[in-house]
Amino acid sequence: MSLPSQKAGTQLLARRVSSGIAGLDTLLDGGFPEGKVVLVLGEPGTGKTIMVSQFLHNGVTGQGDKGVYIGMNEPKTRFNAEMMSLGMDFSRLEKEGKFAYVDATEVRRIPEQAKVGRIPVGGRELGLVNLIDLVQEGIDKLSPKRVVVDSISDLVFRFPQIEERRPAVLDIVEVLQSTGTTCLLTSELPTTGEDRVLQPEEYLAEGVILLRILRKGVRTLQVLKMRGSKVDTTPRPYVIKNTGLEVYATEEVYGQTMEK
Amino acid sequence: MSLPSQKAGTQLLARRVSSGIAGLDTLLDGGFPEGKVVLVLGEPGTGKTIMVSQFLHNGVTGQGDKGVYIGMNEPKTRFNAEMMSLGMDFSRLEKEGKFAYVDATEVRRIPEQAKVGRIPVGGRELGLVNLIDLVQEGIDKLSPKRVVVDSISDLVFRFPQIEERRPAVLDIVEVLQSTGTTCLLTSELPTTGEDRVLQPEEYLAEGVILLRILRKGVRTLQVLKMRGSKVDTTPRPYVIKNTGLEVYATEEVYGQTMEK
Amino acid sequence: MSLPSQKAGTQLLARRVSSGIAGLDTLLDGGFPEGKVVLVLGEPGTGKTIMVSQFLHNGVTGQGDKGVYIGMNEPKTRFNAEMMSLGMDFSRLEKEGKFAYVDATEVRRIPEQAKVGRIPVGGRELGLVNLIDLVQEGIDKLSPKRVVVDSISDLVFRFPQIEERRPAVLDIVEVLQSTGTTCLLTSELPTTGEDRVLQPEEYLAEGVILLRILRKGVRTLQVLKMRGSKVDTTPRPYVIKNTGLEVYATEEVYGQTMEK
Amino acid sequence: MSLPSQKAGTQLLARRVSSGIAGLDTLLDGGFPEGKVVLVLGEPGTGKTIMVSQFLHNGVTGQGDKGVYIGMNEPKTRFNAEMMSLGMDFSRLEKEGKFAYVDATEVRRIPEQAKVGRIPVGGRELGLVNLIDLVQEGIDKLSPKRVVVDSISDLVFRFPQIEERRPAVLDIVEVLQSTGTTCLLTSELPTTGEDRVLQPEEYLAEGVILLRILRKGVRTLQVLKMRGSKVDTTPRPYVIKNTGLEVYATEEVYGQTMEK
Amino acid sequence: MSLPSQKAGTQLLARRVSSGIAGLDTLLDGGFPEGKVVLVLGEPGTGKTIMVSQFLHNGVTGQGDKGVYIGMNEPKTRFNAEMMSLGMDFSRLEKEGKFAYVDATEVRRIPEQAKVGRIPVGGRELGLVNLIDLVQEGIDKLSPKRVVVDSISDLVFRFPQIEERRPAVLDIVEVLQSTGTTCLLTSELPTTGEDRVLQPEEYLAEGVILLRILRKGVRTLQVLKMRGSKVDTTPRPYVIKNTGLEVYATEEVYGQTMEK
Amino acid sequence: MSLPSQKAGTQLLARRVSSGIAGLDTLLDGGFPEGKVVLVLGEPGTGKTIMVSQFLHNGVTGQGDKGVYIGMNEPKTRFNAEMMSLGMDFSRLEKEGKFAYVDATEVRRIPEQAKVGRIPVGGRELGLVNLIDLVQEGIDKLSPKRVVVDSISDLVFRFPQIEERRPAVLDIVEVLQSTGTTCLLTSELPTTGEDRVLQPEEYLAEGVILLRILRKGVRTLQVLKMRGSKVDTTPRPYVIKNTGLEVYATEEVYGQTMEK
Repeated sequence: MSLPSQKAGTQLLARRVSSGIAGLDTLLDGGFPEGKVVLVLGEPGTGKTIMVSQFLHNGVTGQGDKGVYIGMNEPKTRFNAEMMSLGMDFSRLEKEGKFAYVDATEVRRIPEQAKVGRIPVGGRELGLVNLIDLVQEGIDKLSPKRVVVDSISDLVFRFPQIEERRPAVLDIVEVLQSTGTTCLLTSELPTTGEDRVLQPEEYLAEGVILLRILRKGVRTLQVLKMRGSKVDTTPRPYVIKNTGLEVYATEEVYGQTMEK
Repeated sequence: MSLPSQKAGTQLLARRVSSGIAGLDTLLDGGFPEGKVVLVLGEPGTGKTIMVSQFLHNGVTGQGDKGVYIGMNEPKTRFNAEMMSLGMDFSRLEKEGKFAYVDATEVRRIPEQAKVGRIPVGGRELGLVNLIDLVQEGIDKLSPKRVVVDSISDLVFRFPQIEERRPAVLDIVEVLQSTGTTCLLTSELPTTGEDRVLQPEEYLAEGVILLRILRKGVRTLQVLKMRGSKVDTTPRPYVIKNTGLEVYATEEVYGQTMEK
Repeated sequence: MSLPSQKAGTQLLARRVSSGIAGLDTLLDGGFPEGKVVLVLGEPGTGKTIMVSQFLHNGVTGQGDKGVYIGMNEPKTRFNAEMMSLGMDFSRLEKEGKFAYVDATEVRRIPEQAKVGRIPVGGRELGLVNLIDLVQEGIDKLSPKRVVVDSISDLVFRFPQIEERRPAVLDIVEVLQSTGTTCLLTSELPTTGEDRVLQPEEYLAEGVILLRILRKGVRTLQVLKMRGSKVDTTPRPYVIKNTGLEVYATEEVYGQTMEK
Repeated sequence: MSLPSQKAGTQLLARRVSSGIAGLDTLLDGGFPEGKVVLVLGEPGTGKTIMVSQFLHNGVTGQGDKGVYIGMNEPKTRFNAEMMSLGMDFSRLEKEGKFAYVDATEVRRIPEQAKVGRIPVGGRELGLVNLIDLVQEGIDKLSPKRVVVDSISDLVFRFPQIEERRPAVLDIVEVLQSTGTTCLLTSELPTTGEDRVLQPEEYLAEGVILLRILRKGVRTLQVLKMRGSKVDTTPRPYVIKNTGLEVYATEEVYGQTMEK
Repeated sequence: MSLPSQKAGTQLLARRVSSGIAGLDTLLDGGFPEGKVVLVLGEPGTGKTIMVSQFLHNGVTGQGDKGVYIGMNEPKTRFNAEMMSLGMDFSRLEKEGKFAYVDATEVRRIPEQAKVGRIPVGGRELGLVNLIDLVQEGIDKLSPKRVVVDSISDLVFRFPQIEERRPAVLDIVEVLQSTGTTCLLTSELPTTGEDRVLQPEEYLAEGVILLRILRKGVRTLQVLKMRGSKVDTTPRPYVIKNTGLEVYATEEVYGQTMEK
Repeated sequence: MSLPSQKAGTQLLARRVSSGIAGLDTLLDGGFPEGKVVLVLGEPGTGKTIMVSQFLHNGVTGQGDKGVYIGMNEPKTRFNAEMMSLGMDFSRLEKEGKFAYVDATEVRRIPEQAKVGRIPVGGRELGLVNLIDLVQEGIDKLSPKRVVVDSISDLVFRFPQIEERRPAVLDIVEVLQSTGTTCLLTSELPTTGEDRVLQPEEYLAEGVILLRILRKGVRTLQVLKMRGSKVDTTPRPYVIKNTGLEVYATEEVYGQTMEK
C-alpha cells in the first residue's frame, strides 16, 4: 500500500519556479517550490533588490508569469531607473500589463499612534494592515504568479521584542501564503559574522536564502532552508554583474583546514 | 545482594522506541527510551518537522504505534501536503484511525489578556492551558504511543524572563510525562555558533537532540542528552533526502587539529 | 616553633570522603574533604544527577555513610526508577533506613507572593525558607553523613540580579555547612563555551566541579576548586556507563598546539 | 524587443563622478555614480574628513564641480587650517565662489526639548530639521554638484532605538537624494573588529565605504555597496600622505590561509 | 641640576614588603611597594584567600610585621582551620598579639534600607560605612604593618552601575591608603577568558594581580600593575601546595606561535 | 596656482611638540602637533600617568615649556612622590614657577544633585563646570604651553548614555582647544581585547594613543589618530623603566601568520 502513497507524493512534489538567477536553480534543485514564501536575508551591498527583481523580470520575460513588486525602500521612478541600468525594463513591462509596482514607501512613515475611525490603533499595527492591503491590491489588479515584498525590515524593526515580532511576521507570511503565489521577502541582517542571532522570520518563512560578504570581500549565497525541496546548503560565491547576480554553484569559499 | 538489584536494574532498562530515522537509533543505543520527553532543538532549515513526522509515521507503519501530532506552525492541509511530498501519507493514516492531527495554530494568536469566566487571565498562561487541553484531547481520542508537539517556541517566547519560562516549560513537560507516551518537542535555536545560551527546556526535557548547520553548510545532529540511555554525543552529519532525514552515525564533522 | 604548628596542620587535614566515582578521587587527592559544600556545575546531558547519586549510593554501600537526597527536579518514583536502571536501588536503601529521599519539587512552584500568617512574603524568599526546612527535616530524620541538593537552579534563577542572588546562595551554603555533612549541590550552566560568566555560587561554595560537553561531543570533568585539598585542575574526559560516570584521570582533552 | 531596452539601460548607466582619491576610482569602476548618497563609515583615525574633503577639492579643481561642506565637527577656521596643511586651500576656493562651508556645529548642542513657535518639539527632531535647512541653504547658495555632510553621528546617536533611528536617517538621505547632487556622508563606527552590528544607515544609503584599522595597524578601505555600479568589494590597504588618502587598489590585506 | 633630583628619586624608591609567596617577589622587583593598596583579582579556585594569608603570616613570622585580616567570607573558626591545614597557625599568632582577625561577615547581610538614628540610609552605603569602621577598629587595636580585606566583592556588587561603584571603591581604597599600611584587597573576576570587562577597582587600586585558570587547567598569576615598581607583566604559572602558593617566575604559559 | 597653496600648506604644518618619551616622537613624525588635544587611552598598569607626566616634565626641562597638571586621581603629595621616584621633581618645578598642579580630586565626589544659587543643577554637569573652571584657573596662573587632564574617566562615566556623553566630552575638548595649548587627556579602557566598543572621546579628540597589555604581558603603544600629522599606526612594544616609558618604535608585536 506504500506504492500509491509514494506516487501521490511524487505527484504532489511542488512545481518548480525558476529563480531567474544564473546558478541558483542548481542549488534549489530546479527552482523555488511553487507557492512558497521565501526570505532573502542579506547584508548591505549584497544585491537583495537586484535578486528579487531578476526573479520577477525573468518570470515575465522567460515564463510568462505576471509579477508584483511591493516597494518599501524607494519610489517607482528610482526603482525603475536602477533596474533599467541592469537591463531590466520594468516600466515597459508595467505598460504591457505584466508587472505592477506597488508603492509602499509611505508605510515607513506611519506615525506611532493613529486612528481607524474612532479607534486608536498603534501605528506599527497600522503599518502592517496597510502593507497587507497593498499586497491584496497588487494581487487583485494583476493576478500575479510572483510577488516580492522589498523589504519587511521597516515593519519588523518596529517590534523589537521577539514575542511581538513573531506574530507580526506571521501575519505577513500567512497573507502571502493565502495568495497562492510564489513570494520573495527581503530582510536586513542585523550583524555581520558567522555567529548570529536567528531572526523569527527565518523560522516562519518556508525558505531562507542568506547573502553575506565575507571578510575578504567575497559575496556568498547560502540556501539555508527550502520546504518541499532537497537543497544544497553549502555557501557559494556569487558576483553582481551588469546583468544581475550570478552564482557559482559548484565553488566553495572555505578552505579545507577549518571545519568550524 | 547486589545481583538482584542489578537484575532489577536490567529489567527496568527502558524499552526502546525506534526513532524511524536511518542512523539515529545507533546513536541512541537502540532508540528513544520509552515514555521520555525529548527536545529537538534546531536552526531553521534543519528539518525539525520532518524528523518528528518520521518518528510518528514509522511508529504507525513500522511498529503499529498510534501517533498524535500537535501542530502549532501550520494548518493540517499544509502539513499533510508537505509530508506527502516526502512519502508520508498522514491523511490516510488519520482516516485509518492510527494518527491524529491536532490543530494548535490558534494558540499562537491568543491575546495578551483574556478572561476565563470573569477571571482575567494573562493570555500567555491561557496559551499554555489551551495547549495542555489540546494535548489531553489528542490523548483521549486515540490512546497514542507517540506524541509530537511542533513547536513550543511560540509559547515559550512569551515568557522572556528565565524565572517565568522555566515553570511554563515545566508545565508542558510534566503534562506530557504524565501521559506515559514517548514525546518529541521541537524548539527553535535562538542563535547560530558553537557558544550559546542554554535554554531552560534543555535542562527540563529528558532528552535533547541538537540540529545545526555548520559554517560550510553541513547539517549535524548531536544527541546531547538522553536519560536512561547510553548515547553517542558526537555531532554527526546528516542529509535531508526525498524520504526524510538520514544520519551518518559513524562520520565526524570536525578535523583532528583543533579540539576546542 | 614552626614544627608543632606544622604538625597541627597535618592533624587538621580534612578526612577524605570517597566520591564513589571511578577516577575522581585521584583528581581530588583522595576524595572530597569532609564537611565541605561542593558545587557540581554542568551542561545538560553531563550526568549531574547520576554523579551525585553515585556519591550517595557508594556512601551507603561502600562506607556505611547514611545519605539524604533533596530532589527539586523529579518525584521520588521517577528518581528511583532512573537510578535503578543504573544499578542503584535507592528504594531498598530507604527501606533499610540508610537513605532518605526528600521531595522538594513543590518548591519550584511556590507563587511569587505568599503569606506567612498575615505577613506578605516574596514567594522566592519562601522557596528558600522551604528548602532550608526540608534540608533540616532530612538531617533530623537520618543524621546523614552525605547530603545532596539536586538542583539549586530553580531557586537561584528567581534572583536574576547578582546582588540578590549572592545572599540567597549564601543562605543555602551556610545552612548546609552548619550540618557538618559533606554536601553536593548541582547547578545548571547558563552557557556553553570556554569563556563564561562566573556564577556567584562558584565563589560561595567550597568546591566546584565543572561538567561540560566539548564541541566534538567529548564530556569533560574539571575540578576548579576544592578548599583544603591539593587538586588536579586539568579537565579530564569521562563517560557515562551503565553503572554511572567514569573519569579518565590521566587523559587530556586539548592538543599541544594551542595554550589559550 | 530586448535590444532597445538594453540600449536604454546603457544610456541610463550613471555618469561617473571621480572620487579624487588615488586608487579609489578603480574600485568604484570609474568613480561614484552621479546623484547617489554614499556613506563613509570609519574608525577614529581613518581619515574620513580628509577623504570627503579630497572629493570636494578635486571636484572643484579637477572637474569644475562646485562643492558644499556641511560641517558638524569643527568650525570653519579649524577645518580650513587642517585642510591647508594637506595642500587643499578651501578658503581660496570659497572666495572664488566654487565652494561653501556651512557651519552646522551648533546642531550638536540643540537642547533635548525646544519650541517652534508655541509647539514643543523634541530637540533631536529639531536637530534634524536644522540640518536639513542648512543643507538646503548650501544648495541654494551655490548650486553645487557635490555635497558632504561630516558627520551624521551626532544626529543619529540621539536616536538610540533602531525603530527611531531608521526614519531619522531616511529623512537625511531623502533630502540629499532630492537635490540631485552626489553626496558623501561620514559616520562613526561604534566598534572595532570583523563582526559588527550593521547600522541602519548602511542599508539606507546607496553606497557604503568602510574604513578600518586592522590589528597590526594597517588601514583598509572596503567598498561594501554602490548601487548602479559594479564594484570591487575586497578590502584594500591605504595610507594617509601629506596630500591625502592613497588606496592600493590591487593589494590584499589578508593572507591565504584563513578564509573566514 | 638633574643629578640631585635623580638622587632624591632613588631615596624615595618605596621600601619593599616581601610578599611571602615563593617566586612572586621576583616578579615584583623585590616585593610589594610599602604603603600601597593592591588588588588581588581572581577566578574561583585560584587561592586568593591563601595568597593574602601567606602575605600576613610571613609578615609576622618572617619580618615581625603585625597583620590584620578583615574577613567578609567566613567566620574566624573556619578561617583558622583552613589556614592551619596549610601550616599557618593564625590562632596562635592572635594570642601572641601579632595578628587580628576582624569578622566582617555581617556586612554581607546588611538590609537594603536601614536607619542611622532617624535618618534612613541605603543599606549598601551602610555596608561601606561598617567596613570602614571595622578597618579602623583593626588598625587601632594592633597598629599593623599589613592589612587584608578578603573580599570586597559583596560590597561592590551592591553597586551594579559603574558611576556608583567607582566612588564606593574609591572610599575603600582611600581609607586604606590613609592608614599607611600595605594592603591587599581580594576581588572576584566576573568572567573567564582573555577578553574581559575591566573593573573600576583595577584602575583605583595602586597594584593589580590577576589570578586565572587557563583552559587546560593551568593556574596563572600576572602582575598587571604596581605603582612605584618595575614589574614583570608576563603571566606565570603557579601551583597551590600544602604550604601555599608557589609561582614559577621564569616559566611561560603561552606558546610561540600566536601573539594575540 | 597650486604652488602658492602648497607653500601655504607647508607653512601651516603644525609645529612639533616633543613628547618627551623615548621612541614616541618617531611614531608621531617628530612630536605632537602643537595646539592639539590628544587622548591617551589605556588599560590599568599601562603607565598613563607616567607618560603624561614625562610630557610635562620634558616640556619644562627640555623645551622651557611651562606645564599644568590637572589631577583627578590623587592628591598633590602622592603625585609628587610617585613622580619623584621616577626622577621627576615636580615639587621643585612648581617652586620655580614652571609647573602647576591643580587638584581636581574633589570633582569626583560632587553629589548627584547640587544647587547653583537657587537653580538645581545635576551634579554631573556641575562636575564638568568645575573641571572647566579648574582648567581655566591653571591657564590663568601660569600661561602654560602644555596641559594634562588625568583622567577624564570619573567625569565621563557619569554619562552612561552615548547621547549624553558626547556633548560632555565635547565641552572638555573645546575648552582645551580654545586655550591654544597642547593637551593630553587620559582615559580608561573599559575592556581588554582586540575587538572593542569605540569611545566617543576617540572621535572627538584630535589624536588618540592606545596603551594595552597583550595576552603574553607585552605592553604596546599604538598611535591610532593624530590630525595634522603623518603617523605610524603600527602597535609598538614599550617598557616602563625607572625613568619612565620607552617605546621600541621599529619592533612589531604580532607574528607573520595571522593578519586579522
